[in-house]
Amino acid sequence: MRVFRRTTFNAAHRLYRSDWSDEKNADVFGKCSNPNFHGHNYVLEVGISGPINPETGYIIDLKELKTIINEHVADYFDHRNLNLDIPEFEGLNPTVENIAKVSHELIRKHLSPQYDLLVRLYETPNNWVEYTG
Amino acid sequence: MRVFRRTTFNAAHRLYRSDWSDEKNADVFGKCSNPNFHGHNYVLEVGISGPINPETGYIIDLKELKTIINEHVADYFDHRNLNLDIPEFEGLNPTVENIAKVSHELIRKHLSPQYDLLVRLYETPNNWVEYTG
Amino acid sequence: MRVFRRTTFNAAHRLYRSDWSDEKNADVFGKCSNPNFHGHNYVLEVGISGPINPETGYIIDLKELKTIINEHVADYFDHRNLNLDIPEFEGLNPTVENIAKVSHELIRKHLSPQYDLLVRLYETPNNWVEYTG
Amino acid sequence: MRVFRRTTFNAAHRLYRSDWSDEKNADVFGKCSNPNFHGHNYVLEVGISGPINPETGYIIDLKELKTIINEHVADYFDHRNLNLDIPEFEGLNPTVENIAKVSHELIRKHLSPQYDLLVRLYETPNNWVEYTG
Amino acid sequence: MRVFRRTTFNAAHRLYRSDWSDEKNADVFGKCSNPNFHGHNYVLEVGISGPINPETGYIIDLKELKTIINEHVADYFDHRNLNLDIPEFEGLNPTVENIAKVSHELIRKHLSPQYDLLVRLYETPNNWVEYTG
Amino acid sequence: MRVFRRTTFNAAHRLYRSDWSDEKNADVFGKCSNPNFHGHNYVLEVGISGPINPETGYIIDLKELKTIINEHVADYFDHRNLNLDIPEFEGLNPTVENIAKVSHELIRKHLSPQYDLLVRLYETPNNWVEYTG
Repeated sequence: MRVFRRTTFNAAHRLYRSDWSDEKNADVFGKCSNPNFHGHNYVLEVGISGPINPETGYIIDLKELKTIINEHVADYFDHRNLNLDIPEFEGLNPTVENIAKVSHELIRKHLSPQYDLLVRLYETPNNWVEYTG
Repeated sequence: MRVFRRTTFNAAHRLYRSDWSDEKNADVFGKCSNPNFHGHNYVLEVGISGPINPETGYIIDLKELKTIINEHVADYFDHRNLNLDIPEFEGLNPTVENIAKVSHELIRKHLSPQYDLLVRLYETPNNWVEYTG
Repeated sequence: MRVFRRTTFNAAHRLYRSDWSDEKNADVFGKCSNPNFHGHNYVLEVGISGPINPETGYIIDLKELKTIINEHVADYFDHRNLNLDIPEFEGLNPTVENIAKVSHELIRKHLSPQYDLLVRLYETPNNWVEYTG
Repeated sequence: MRVFRRTTFNAAHRLYRSDWSDEKNADVFGKCSNPNFHGHNYVLEVGISGPINPETGYIIDLKELKTIINEHVADYFDHRNLNLDIPEFEGLNPTVENIAKVSHELIRKHLSPQYDLLVRLYETPNNWVEYTG
Repeated sequence: MRVFRRTTFNAAHRLYRSDWSDEKNADVFGKCSNPNFHGHNYVLEVGISGPINPETGYIIDLKELKTIINEHVADYFDHRNLNLDIPEFEGLNPTVENIAKVSHELIRKHLSPQYDLLVRLYETPNNWVEYTG
Repeated sequence: MRVFRRTTFNAAHRLYRSDWSDEKNADVFGKCSNPNFHGHNYVLEVGISGPINPETGYIIDLKELKTIINEHVADYFDHRNLNLDIPEFEGLNPTVENIAKVSHELIRKHLSPQYDLLVRLYETPNNWVEYTG
């Protein structure tokens, strides 16, 4: 059984490699590489699997999970520029794939190892990723 | 291949263990343990996997699946108090995990054993579980 | 121009008049009158109309509006039993119409009189009301 | 990790086997077999799994994936009658299961073999299938 | 105050005037005029305004409203071909505008004259109309 | 009767007045004033009212409306930084109120004067504005 918690954050980013010319960035990443950035309402769904604790009926207390997600990902990314404000994206292109990977790593560090962790991250309602580590 | 059917029911509940004091219930379950109950618009998604029947092009006739879900779960829980009205939750805390587990058991009993069964249950758009039995 | 803020609360209720017999309540309100209550994920949308403040570009600071809505309606109703826990529904049937009317009155009291106020309240995704006072 | 792209198409269909009488079609498929057809706003979600390309940060360039999906499925089915206009459904009942299977085959042909392919197809918000080939 | 009820129906149609050539139909209505039809999951929202009945707390009993909507519009159009199966569209192009107008007329006939009536009809999540008669 | 067309664009912005100190901007606009910008998936709904053209059954040809919206607003704002890339926001704080007002003006210029124009703009699913000019 897997339990999910959904949250959102709003951030700016551009797809960009600093070791490529602006032309190559524009060629590969198109309008997503606009030098002045654009942004998204990201939706983050975090799934935790494990047995039901017979005492509480919970897999995990969602209040605790919410605290971990907000503190280490959602509030950390919210109203930020991923390229400029978040050290994890120095030298790492903030594609939805890489944002999901970084989110997984940030949550994984603060989650008890007994749980499996799935991260689903929507960049728009039309494109998203799922990642299980 | 897995085919899904979505339905909804509206119910009251509280998170509560009768062998704990009110204080301990409030301490562990917070506002979810309000003695006068609160409630949700639950969304239930049921997934059935199996081969496509070459005669009909169906995995399962969704009209039959809908009848099973409504009769044994959705209509049974709808406009009810899970703690007080549903015998399956006597002595079982109606967390979203346990409601999904009970829903799975109730559908499983009336479903042909040839099918695998997945239950996804949303308590709110922000928290839900998936269960495959 | 009108600006909107959306929030949610989860509550239990039953449709019920104390001056009617249980039979008459059941006859008029059907399963919505279950004596043990049922519940909903209510969605509350609050719209404020007025001119754009040329200094801020706001009609109203949504942080202030959010504080008013949460303090006087959303947090006040959330995880409560509307019939038993909320004095405004003593002797007032908590239909979606009446909950919207009470919500409007509670917000109106704490909102500057310069603003018009619209309340939209969803009981489920399939039924809701709009009220402008 | 799996990356998803969502698109939509609107089509007419009826559930029907030409080797059955109209009566048997009506008996098995009910109102879905109306001889004059009915239709749906289909929602197609396509998931591609594979490693993140370290150069781009992409699993696959979604612009390329979008081109494949639109050219071979979404634009091909959009504003069409699946029974009459799409050769793949000659002699194949256009149930949501079979439409998903055909969509998977059409995309699979034009997708690099290094990728796994998942197709999720919604006929309505209440019924859909998932298929991994 | 206005109370709303939402329902859905799935139907086939084509945009078409029988007094125009096929070429002119294709020229004006584009792919929406495919002679073999296409279809949609229509979403119908019906709003009724009036005072709250102090006895029940209702503007209108939604169970009664639901019966009117289903009997005269939703079940009448569902799984039908609007052009071929519904007499109201003989000689009337089934655009979303005209379907909303016909829906309004069909409900209006069976609704007590004390109520104002609003019809909102979605052809897709991206295009819809509102009509107050 | 009013007909609506929905579209989306993704943009970066910050709430900011250049004639205020950074401190005052931060004080009034909070995290929305992050100097490195943040962003949103904006959803734009455009409503046009007028009579149904008896020849076509349209209020307005949505293909033409879509072209106006995309050319003058959605494609113009999409993947842009509203503060830096869009001249209309030089000296105008890009709040959701002002973005809606600018969108209304840009569409109004290219729309036949016979139509009334409503703009609804969502910054997030939780806050939006409606503007009729």
